[in-house]
Amino acid sequence: MSDPWKECMDYCLEVTKEAGKMIRDALQRDISIMQKSSPVDLVTETDQKVEELIISSIRKKYPTHSFIGEESVAAGAASVLTENPTWIIDPIDGTTNFVHRFPFVCVSIGFTVNKEIEFGIVYSCIEEKMYTARRGKGAFCNGVPIKVSGQEDISKSLVLTETGFKKDPEHFRTMMANMESILTIPVHGIRSPGSAAVNMCLVACGAADAYYHMGIHCWDMAGGAAIVREAGGVIMDVSGGPFDLMSRRLITASSRAIADCIAKKIQPFPCGRDDAEN
Amino acid sequence: MSDPWKECMDYCLEVTKEAGKMIRDALQRDISIMQKSSPVDLVTETDQKVEELIISSIRKKYPTHSFIGEESVAAGAASVLTENPTWIIDPIDGTTNFVHRFPFVCVSIGFTVNKEIEFGIVYSCIEEKMYTARRGKGAFCNGVPIKVSGQEDISKSLVLTETGFKKDPEHFRTMMANMESILTIPVHGIRSPGSAAVNMCLVACGAADAYYHMGIHCWDMAGGAAIVREAGGVIMDVSGGPFDLMSRRLITASSRAIADCIAKKIQPFPCGRDDAEN
Repeated sequence: MSDPWKECMDYCLEVTKEAGKMIRDALQRDISIMQKSSPVDLVTETDQKVEELIISSIRKKYPTHSFIGEESVAAGAASVLTENPTWIIDPIDGTTNFVHRFPFVCVSIGFTVNKEIEFGIVYSCIEEKMYTARRGKGAFCNGVPIKVSGQEDISKSLVLTETGFKKDPEHFRTMMANMESILTIPVHGIRSPGSAAVNMCLVACGAADAYYHMGIHCWDMAGGAAIVREAGGVIMDVSGGPFDLMSRRLITASSRAIADCIAKKIQPFPCGRDDAEN
Repeated sequence: MSDPWKECMDYCLEVTKEAGKMIRDALQRDISIMQKSSPVDLVTETDQKVEELIISSIRKKYPTHSFIGEESVAAGAASVLTENPTWIIDPIDGTTNFVHRFPFVCVSIGFTVNKEIEFGIVYSCIEEKMYTARRGKGAFCNGVPIKVSGQEDISKSLVLTETGFKKDPEHFRTMMANMESILTIPVHGIRSPGSAAVNMCLVACGAADAYYHMGIHCWDMAGGAAIVREAGGVIMDVSGGPFDLMSRRLITASSRAIADCIAKKIQPFPCGRDDAEN
């Protein structure tokens, strides 16, 4: 039992490849879009089909495991992390990108046991980049080891974050003010690729030095969290405290110095918890 | 003489491929960075070497032609558009991306005769996407025809723009206020990939519906302008008037409706002209 979850991860990799292919195929066809709650919160038939494929494949093999999936939660399933082996799934991270065929679209899967992330897989399927990491075993992109930039000076850093329309004017103000606080440090720049999991992988492979975000979900973060940690990165709460997978917010960076600096510069806004309803 | 500039374009394509290879090779090595004027305005040895390669190759073949290149202008060369056949060159568009190995880095070349753009080539060399367009002959990515999304409804659009630290607080305020104006329309989202020429190509191939920017240069726009026009896109000044290559600002979009809407929503700030000093 030195490596109890390796089989799960190998199986996950195969399922993820199949899911990625399904997404690429869908991008060749027309997309019929349904609107969930607002123009920035799009969900497609493909999103649901991909999640169905992933969950049904894994459940057949591991019937006692638990699942938290974006689409299942949208359909009313619980979103509570237990000690049971749990698969946390975003079938398409970057749904808006998907709808527009903007090139950062991925499948993101994280696997927890006793509430600890054991492995993560993020497949950026248009770029065909498969990011993988298992606890204590390093992080990889297409099988090649990756590591964070190691940058410690925020003024030399490239920072990722996402903007979007927020119904609550105060949240919107805070989001814009945070961006201003970071830009005026100043940093080398801010980039917004539009996929949380891809953003975490870009930090993991050293293409960016930090990423912060509030209002995302555990399925956006679980896969990427394993990858950025194993690549030598830091992951923490926006308050500067420990990272909490269900808190809907994170800072991840190439070094503690940069993560701490961002934590000091940005103001949190309340965004609830993924497990709040239960 | 039905097709007088085809030979120039074919030659340009070969030079661009070579330049792209030089950039990819440099990304494999360590990068020694010089700072031009501020942390966001980085220039590397590679930037200068690539421009040298491009200009010397083309000058050998076309000794009577004129050149406007980012690095030459930084070194004191004139930046005036004349009626002479003129090559407008950005050896590395997305220099900050290049320094961080963030995956949008390109060579951008536009070719003008009588101040009209005859063709453009943008080579996004990490993605290995070669965008090409000649006046009246359509736009292509790796030889496959591309076209804009055709989206006319701004509320369903994905918009590209770039943020950055501006020394002038009023310019900074305007930049942030413009972003807010666009986000609150609302649109599907804003993305910031960090390369003007790549942004224009993303609009050209329908992966985004609009891009606006103030403070960029003719070498950031010349190649992409040919591509987005030939892909059926609209390109205009931020005032809503005709596009001016030397004006340091642009809106480009999948349709006139979206471009007009952005022109109404954003406030210009003075950013000078590329040909102002002369």
